[in-house]
Amino acid sequence: MAKEVKLFGWYGSPVSRRVEFALKLKGVEYEYIEEDLSNKSDLLLKYNPVHKKIPVLVHNGKPIAESLVIIEYIDETWKHNPILPQHPYERALARFWAKFYDDKCQPALWKSIWSKGEEREEAIKEAYEHLNTLENELKDKKFFGGQDIGLVDIAANFIGFWLGLFQEVSGLELLTEEKFPKLYKWSQDYVTHSVIKEKLPSRDRMIAYISARFEASSK
Amino acid sequence: MAKEVKLFGWYGSPVSRRVEFALKLKGVEYEYIEEDLSNKSDLLLKYNPVHKKIPVLVHNGKPIAESLVIIEYIDETWKHNPILPQHPYERALARFWAKFYDDKCQPALWKSIWSKGEEREEAIKEAYEHLNTLENELKDKKFFGGQDIGLVDIAANFIGFWLGLFQEVSGLELLTEEKFPKLYKWSQDYVTHSVIKEKLPSRDRMIAYISARFEASSK
Repeated sequence: MAKEVKLFGWYGSPVSRRVEFALKLKGVEYEYIEEDLSNKSDLLLKYNPVHKKIPVLVHNGKPIAESLVIIEYIDETWKHNPILPQHPYERALARFWAKFYDDKCQPALWKSIWSKGEEREEAIKEAYEHLNTLENELKDKKFFGGQDIGLVDIAANFIGFWLGLFQEVSGLELLTEEKFPKLYKWSQDYVTHSVIKEKLPSRDRMIAYISARFEASSK
Repeated sequence: MAKEVKLFGWYGSPVSRRVEFALKLKGVEYEYIEEDLSNKSDLLLKYNPVHKKIPVLVHNGKPIAESLVIIEYIDETWKHNPILPQHPYERALARFWAKFYDDKCQPALWKSIWSKGEEREEAIKEAYEHLNTLENELKDKKFFGGQDIGLVDIAANFIGFWLGLFQEVSGLELLTEEKFPKLYKWSQDYVTHSVIKEKLPSRDRMIAYISARFEASSK
């Protein structure tokens, strides 16, 4: 019943892809609606009036926004192939690290990529610190979730795929094999995971998009 | 077994109190450890090395940080008197609004209180907008959680108790009965809820603390 589940997303968005990865991990069929972010649909604005942002999942007509909230909903609604661990303490740790990623790591990475001068230097310093925290948290696990991917891996998907592309286009070096060997290895394992690789955006299309954005921002 | 559960907190902190309200709602006994925020204990830094902040809950020797993460842990560990709703969709909405409070509403309120000039005007405008969103979300419910308090009520506890004190000391008027009648009524019902009122800080002590902070910031 593909029509039961609809996802409003945008092709190149890491948060939109988070939801696609979760649905794919569960084997849930869904209808995907691509949004034009410069001209958002009335339906998106109706379904997410507070933030007016993708992704929005609509299940049996009921909308949910915020990618991590959506993933918890997916995990509670379709219980096979769990994305969060089963034990409350392990669940709390997964939520802690996903929140750490969103609150601390992602803003510092984004600022490292887009800001200038002193602000950029500060952001890079902070990004290194957060990447180092994640490097230590990985310990000897293949994924943050252990042997298979879980909430934290999906939350950190920008590091797995997008960060490398931004680095390639901008020349910025944050995540390298030398500096963060475990996290680098994780990023390789993440993008080659059978479910993830099937749902990643096209590398070439993303490189073209990022290059165009950099060109526009330097004008 | 009070020793099984320890909470590292600070007397005047809304996020620390969130956890106390949740424990109290569950009837879980705990040992409370007051932190000196200007000289944090080695134990706190050991238990929350990433953020170095209260609150930290330690259950059977295992630490958890971040108040909303802790509340979900409490709700999953002691299942009676549920704090989150039972149905996945209602749970998603509760998580969405708690996150909205933390990500949008609280920063705007804090900035309205402490910033100056144009930044303050902008923050007040934003705070009104977010309070209005919450006003609309309350609809005709007594609490965000319905007939009894739940995750969103506890998340918004700053509005319930602390905001009024800051308004009293600073003269700032954000939450008033005229502007936000439902939210104002909610704040009255919240602070007189049998569990909440028992665990609120002393009004006089908080007024003295806030007054001292304002005085120090104006020097």
